[in-house]
Amino acid sequence: MITSASNSQMKNIVQLNKKSRERSRQDVFLVEGVKMFREVPKDRLLQVYVSESFYKEEKHQKLLEGCPWELVSDSVFQAVSDTKTPQGVICMVKQFHYSLEDLISPAKGEAPLCMALENLQDPGNLGTILRTAEGAGVSGVLLSRESVDLYNPKVIRSTMGSIYRMPFFYSQDLREDLKKWKSRGICLYAAHLKGSRPYDEADYRQPAAFLIGNESQGLTEETADLADCRIRIPMEGQVESLNAAVASAVLMYEARRQRRG
Amino acid sequence: MITSASNSQMKNIVQLNKKSRERSRQDVFLVEGVKMFREVPKDRLLQVYVSESFYKEEKHQKLLEGCPWELVSDSVFQAVSDTKTPQGVICMVKQFHYSLEDLISPAKGEAPLCMALENLQDPGNLGTILRTAEGAGVSGVLLSRESVDLYNPKVIRSTMGSIYRMPFFYSQDLREDLKKWKSRGICLYAAHLKGSRPYDEADYRQPAAFLIGNESQGLTEETADLADCRIRIPMEGQVESLNAAVASAVLMYEARRQRRG
Repeated sequence: MITSASNSQMKNIVQLNKKSRERSRQDVFLVEGVKMFREVPKDRLLQVYVSESFYKEEKHQKLLEGCPWELVSDSVFQAVSDTKTPQGVICMVKQFHYSLEDLISPAKGEAPLCMALENLQDPGNLGTILRTAEGAGVSGVLLSRESVDLYNPKVIRSTMGSIYRMPFFYSQDLREDLKKWKSRGICLYAAHLKGSRPYDEADYRQPAAFLIGNESQGLTEETADLADCRIRIPMEGQVESLNAAVASAVLMYEARRQRRG
Repeated sequence: MITSASNSQMKNIVQLNKKSRERSRQDVFLVEGVKMFREVPKDRLLQVYVSESFYKEEKHQKLLEGCPWELVSDSVFQAVSDTKTPQGVICMVKQFHYSLEDLISPAKGEAPLCMALENLQDPGNLGTILRTAEGAGVSGVLLSRESVDLYNPKVIRSTMGSIYRMPFFYSQDLREDLKKWKSRGICLYAAHLKGSRPYDEADYRQPAAFLIGNESQGLTEETADLADCRIRIPMEGQVESLNAAVASAVLMYEARRQRRG
């Protein structure tokens, strides 16, 4: 049992929670909690750390069968966990490596439905977008390199497991990649406060991608200019904009509604 | 200028940020930031506190004209603010007191469109729901008494000003109040994972209310039983549920879409 926070594995966990660069270098990320542990693809699971209290429960011992795991004292576990009230299980998982192509290749053979996120900064928003994207049947999520790191522990928590299943790709040049999509026949819809077309008057049954901008600045003009169409979510009252995850959800679910038919 | 954190007004700010009971007792709440200050209804504004740095800018001095305000040293301001990087302005505002009736009396004379939230716990979710509700033209938001306090500083921040404009009411008995709405001809739609009807197959142009449950438990059976219809947002992949603010947004904007067109 690991009983010291200065154990090298424990120190590594603290680093991996804090530093995007370190996660990249080691090509891993951490997930916490029972649900995230249950859903982790077994071929990506490198190591499980469990607290004493977690291990005491028989049902938890069953979950650990066949997994590489280590026991950690409760106090050390509490010290290295990213959450205030840890559930007692942390997994080290191999990072995913999708291509731009993976994002527009839906498994079911239907038309691609994609999200492109420019400089999204809020971890909760990004995680929620991934979760909603899976629910709405999105085929992949493209992110500008300046966006928040998807392997940030807060992002991972709010994905509720969708991080394991939703293809995503950090673009070195978002506009170039969007041009590639366009040349592949994907229609780009920019969510824009000054959009000329109400979002529910466009047809999303064809290959489509929604462009969503930064929480406070929205899309850059250069990126919005690439879009085939600027769409607007009508707003009543004095609301100036919607939360980025909310706007994304309204658009993705409108596309899904049209496709369900 | 206030230069000590033990000044009684500063101590009061700290209390009001922390304690729902204290906000209730004094019948006030606090808002922070320039946008929240600009949008506060002037007849509710009791006191403004500004930091030295904030006051140095001429445009800010103009904003303060006609307002009761006090100068606070930067260090004290930082100490009492609820945010890590304060914008330099805190307002003390009189609480709102709506009735259950206000929530179903839209200004424009269209059919009421309401939200009923049961035991919502996440401040960000509640604030985002209020913001989206205003955008979608909802007439009012009913909350069970166990829900998180709308005057919690985190909720207020995520409302982005909608707290000033969206009628809301904390119910002492949510089910009793929902029965009153039913007797007034409002159709109750429970968002439910086992709902029999896809959400986009119901007609929301008539008086309607959406019932949304707690983030992890969903609606209680007793409350869901009151609904005229249990609706379901279809989910692809392995997603078990959507975030409460996202589910609310999808429903409210579907109702708005039907009503617009």
